[in-house]
Amino acid sequence: MKKIDLLTPVGIFIGLTAVFTAIYTNAAGAGNLTDFIQIASLLIVLGGLSSAILINFSIADLKLLPKVIKETFQTKDQDLQALIDTFVDLSAKARREGLLALEAGLEDVDDPFIEKGVLLAVDGIEPDIIKDIMMAEVIAMEERHRKGRVILEKAGEYAPAWGMIGTLVGLVLMLQNLNDPSTLGPNMAIALLTTLYGTLLANLVFNPMSNKLALSTEEEVFIKQIVVEGVIGVQSGQNPKILQEKLSAFLPNHSKGEKEEELEEKDSNE
Amino acid sequence: MKKIDLLTPVGIFIGLTAVFTAIYTNAAGAGNLTDFIQIASLLIVLGGLSSAILINFSIADLKLLPKVIKETFQTKDQDLQALIDTFVDLSAKARREGLLALEAGLEDVDDPFIEKGVLLAVDGIEPDIIKDIMMAEVIAMEERHRKGRVILEKAGEYAPAWGMIGTLVGLVLMLQNLNDPSTLGPNMAIALLTTLYGTLLANLVFNPMSNKLALSTEEEVFIKQIVVEGVIGVQSGQNPKILQEKLSAFLPNHSKGEKEEELEEKDSNE
Amino acid sequence: MKKIDLLTPVGIFIGLTAVFTAIYTNAAGAGNLTDFIQIASLLIVLGGLSSAILINFSIADLKLLPKVIKETFQTKDQDLQALIDTFVDLSAKARREGLLALEAGLEDVDDPFIEKGVLLAVDGIEPDIIKDIMMAEVIAMEERHRKGRVILEKAGEYAPAWGMIGTLVGLVLMLQNLNDPSTLGPNMAIALLTTLYGTLLANLVFNPMSNKLALSTEEEVFIKQIVVEGVIGVQSGQNPKILQEKLSAFLPNHSKGEKEEELEEKDSNE
Amino acid sequence: MKKIDLLTPVGIFIGLTAVFTAIYTNAAGAGNLTDFIQIASLLIVLGGLSSAILINFSIADLKLLPKVIKETFQTKDQDLQALIDTFVDLSAKARREGLLALEAGLEDVDDPFIEKGVLLAVDGIEPDIIKDIMMAEVIAMEERHRKGRVILEKAGEYAPAWGMIGTLVGLVLMLQNLNDPSTLGPNMAIALLTTLYGTLLANLVFNPMSNKLALSTEEEVFIKQIVVEGVIGVQSGQNPKILQEKLSAFLPNHSKGEKEEELEEKDSNE
Amino acid sequence: MKKIDLLTPVGIFIGLTAVFTAIYTNAAGAGNLTDFIQIASLLIVLGGLSSAILINFSIADLKLLPKVIKETFQTKDQDLQALIDTFVDLSAKARREGLLALEAGLEDVDDPFIEKGVLLAVDGIEPDIIKDIMMAEVIAMEERHRKGRVILEKAGEYAPAWGMIGTLVGLVLMLQNLNDPSTLGPNMAIALLTTLYGTLLANLVFNPMSNKLALSTEEEVFIKQIVVEGVIGVQSGQNPKILQEKLSAFLPNHSKGEKEEELEEKDSNE
Repeated sequence: MKKIDLLTPVGIFIGLTAVFTAIYTNAAGAGNLTDFIQIASLLIVLGGLSSAILINFSIADLKLLPKVIKETFQTKDQDLQALIDTFVDLSAKARREGLLALEAGLEDVDDPFIEKGVLLAVDGIEPDIIKDIMMAEVIAMEERHRKGRVILEKAGEYAPAWGMIGTLVGLVLMLQNLNDPSTLGPNMAIALLTTLYGTLLANLVFNPMSNKLALSTEEEVFIKQIVVEGVIGVQSGQNPKILQEKLSAFLPNHSKGEKEEELEEKDSNE
Repeated sequence: MKKIDLLTPVGIFIGLTAVFTAIYTNAAGAGNLTDFIQIASLLIVLGGLSSAILINFSIADLKLLPKVIKETFQTKDQDLQALIDTFVDLSAKARREGLLALEAGLEDVDDPFIEKGVLLAVDGIEPDIIKDIMMAEVIAMEERHRKGRVILEKAGEYAPAWGMIGTLVGLVLMLQNLNDPSTLGPNMAIALLTTLYGTLLANLVFNPMSNKLALSTEEEVFIKQIVVEGVIGVQSGQNPKILQEKLSAFLPNHSKGEKEEELEEKDSNE
Repeated sequence: MKKIDLLTPVGIFIGLTAVFTAIYTNAAGAGNLTDFIQIASLLIVLGGLSSAILINFSIADLKLLPKVIKETFQTKDQDLQALIDTFVDLSAKARREGLLALEAGLEDVDDPFIEKGVLLAVDGIEPDIIKDIMMAEVIAMEERHRKGRVILEKAGEYAPAWGMIGTLVGLVLMLQNLNDPSTLGPNMAIALLTTLYGTLLANLVFNPMSNKLALSTEEEVFIKQIVVEGVIGVQSGQNPKILQEKLSAFLPNHSKGEKEEELEEKDSNE
Repeated sequence: MKKIDLLTPVGIFIGLTAVFTAIYTNAAGAGNLTDFIQIASLLIVLGGLSSAILINFSIADLKLLPKVIKETFQTKDQDLQALIDTFVDLSAKARREGLLALEAGLEDVDDPFIEKGVLLAVDGIEPDIIKDIMMAEVIAMEERHRKGRVILEKAGEYAPAWGMIGTLVGLVLMLQNLNDPSTLGPNMAIALLTTLYGTLLANLVFNPMSNKLALSTEEEVFIKQIVVEGVIGVQSGQNPKILQEKLSAFLPNHSKGEKEEELEEKDSNE
Repeated sequence: MKKIDLLTPVGIFIGLTAVFTAIYTNAAGAGNLTDFIQIASLLIVLGGLSSAILINFSIADLKLLPKVIKETFQTKDQDLQALIDTFVDLSAKARREGLLALEAGLEDVDDPFIEKGVLLAVDGIEPDIIKDIMMAEVIAMEERHRKGRVILEKAGEYAPAWGMIGTLVGLVLMLQNLNDPSTLGPNMAIALLTTLYGTLLANLVFNPMSNKLALSTEEEVFIKQIVVEGVIGVQSGQNPKILQEKLSAFLPNHSKGEKEEELEEKDSNE
């Protein structure tokens, strides 16, 4: 089940607090937040960033962006042990009552990917083809996630570059108007703001978010691979104990627990 | 069908607008566009960039450049569902009427790659050889695209480097003529312009364009792989339902739709 | 057996000593440690770093962090020769007394991974499946280690970036308050401190630690692969001499030693 | 046939012209070429670069350098269509008159790699071994080219680094002699020259040249792979039409041309 | 045979000469070597570098360092033609007199790796297992070399980083003591020295040395692979002429020389 991931908003809040604290308690003379807000500077960073992103991607890719951003605020609870138990149960049931009996029990399973796999097994399709079909779906999901994520990745590259472009524009203007030395400092401060914006966007928003998505895609692929292994094991009538052993290898700490002992009994009753 | 991709010109327009806005509304004293145009600075960046590109590539590679740039202003509408339906229909027809019957229906297909694949299948060539021939073509296309794209990629590397070279030349000249301090600022401003040109070219033009081409090549390879899978499936007389299942795994959201139900009927009539 | 790795604390001590020495004996005028401690600067680097890390990772990942840090203070003594001897002995025993006889001798082995492998062999499970199960565990361990390590890796990337953000904030504030030139130096010094903190954290703590973990994971995978080779060799009844030859290839200097001669005798007695 | 590649000298000429133009027409006050020539600066960049290269490579590697540099001034005309036609002809001849008949026609072929392949086929050596032998030669060629090229690649890395070392030396000297402020500018200009030299060497000479060599090696490997495919096809008695289809997939635009039609006639006469 | 590689000491000598020349003949006012030696600066670069290395590696890894450094001062003369001739001779002998006859002739071979391979062949062990054993040894050697080399690689990364840390410390101290402007220059000069030390260490010592080791490991792996191919060829009783052809593909220029003609005679006498 997906639920809200508090880490992303909490992280952004902490990051902004750190910047605000640095501004207001700076030993170099406490600053003021308004000194750090320049609409023109913000415009060149965001405008330039948008222009590069628009050229870089197709409309179909960009349509993935809202969904991708939403996903960085979500997390998934994964009970790997329960997943493995599901397949061990299915495997035991298939050996006792045959593959066709599995269709009835699918109502309890609410993961459509598991359901699809088991239905393919029940349909009597060969293991190799089941694996092909399921892995094609995993790869397509990975590809889809990657496409959305790469927008954030590229934004993390373009943001500091456009921050630097803004600073260069500001420096050129400042250097061409050196007549009044008293404006030198403030003007240079304004020029530096675009670099600050670009770096902040990259290191507080784009890079952490795109990395988070990469990790969560990896996690999802990992779980789907366990499902594929499980479906193949169930269909090929593998011994539930060996299937348990095989799938448990994916767990961080797989101690010989209750489930396994229970299984041994079932197995010896056969 | 290829059509004009508005994102590229719109993106470049937005990027230039961002820069112009930054120049004219800069808090450090509104500037003037003419202050940012220096023919000599432009010459060293473009001249240096061209020199590096000329050494880097062969004439055959460089001839690909106009086509490559044109492609960044084009986009392709891909109806994946229609593509899959085509193969499901072909597969059903092949099972009913034999492979030879497919040649007649090819008039409706306007993708030469599909046509070629089906003709190879009709000719009775073995699936492995068909796959070899078709994948060789996909790899050759990928290679051809990569060759053109790498020119833009390298331009995105050389542009900022030559911008820095121009700035170094300007700085050296400025530092050797420090007699008149009033020229210090403007001369340094001019020196910085080449870095601005180089960075702008890289982050507004070359990098986004080469990344766009990489993504569109990826997309095209992806679609051609579906075609190859489809042709092989049709030729090996695979069950249309399984072929549908297999190819649908590539789709973002593959719900059991009308096509599939229709198929089940056909299948049960056999 | 794991034991405390003195290199990590010693390294950190030497690094800090180097910095302290540089401060107190600096030719540019001996400094004072207190000049280098700025709570506000520390807050922005650590706060910003934490914010990026929180967004980047899930709670499940972050829970691995304490264990990961603890591991950088631990080292493992690995006696590769003893490991190989164990398998040569097991192989000789299996050939003399049969695979089932191995279960009795397992009490002497205190590595649960070897024990598990041998038990799978004793259970009569096929070599391919044993290899699958054992390698799945190795890959899962590698994956687990990588997940923890990547937090330190990313910290090594974010720390200098947030150091730079802190310096930019300080520079902007300094430039906006140029009225009193006497504060220019000290304020710029304070601004530079965040860059110093960020770079120091990356090059004294995060990068060396994450690299150390990468190397130790590599080492562990290497050893576990020897175990897998050994178990497969024992189960398939491979000649102990050839197994010895095969496993010894992994050793840095494998001279024909006592063990091997001893084996030849055993072998000729068969 | 190899012929002189004008692009390399033209590129270097354009690059130097761009730099000269920038010096003489600089808005910051037209400079003088002699201001940009400092023997000491040149010595540290070239000396340091040479020292790093000498340590980095063995004498055997360095002996490849003149040949490698010469190759960047050469280009090869490749007629892919003629190459494919050669194999289609050989294949048709082999089917009509037997493999042994091919030896006689080899006089027309002036590519020793094709000749060698055909001779191996005529000798009756198995396709797998022919492929092994020919691919070993391709890999060895690739390896040889890579070895020479990597010298230029490393030079492109060391040149800017040593430019920076020279600038640091100059800056330290300048800062230690601040007594006469009038020398500050010129001395800093001289210090910056080494960075200019290093960057120019990297972006005008080393990087473009090593990239050019990488692309031309890729091209050569590509062509040799077509030759290997062709030889295998000829030896295994593949249908000339299928061989044509297979090899043509490598061509950018392979329209059904005269050659192919001609072939169909020959084929139907068999 | 290993012999002293003069390139490394000559390279270091040239590099230091380049730096000294730059110091003493600098147009910005000839400097003095003593101005460039600061014990405190040296301490922070070397101390910081050591601390990062100590944390990064285990004691077992660090023990490889002296051997690794020694190896950068050594070179190996490899006579590839002689190596190939050895195997062609062994192959001819094995075909005439049987595999067992090879053991007698091994006294002339002083490469323990060839000796081991031939002994395995004589022992009648299967080609696949011989290949496994020998390749395991090659991989272990590669791994061992990599472990030592990576210390130098990491040193090449940490050295400039710690140089920058030292400069930051110096800059902070300088900026906090701006009272006496006359010390500004010299103090900044001292601060820059650590960056100079770090960059020099990386680009004169660590990077070239680690690259040299990478290339020599590659070379050794390449030669050992020829040995493995040769042993397998000898054992499987391959025709000496084909073996010659196969192994010669690895040579830069393999003309049909005396050896080969000699072989053809032997072959026809069989």
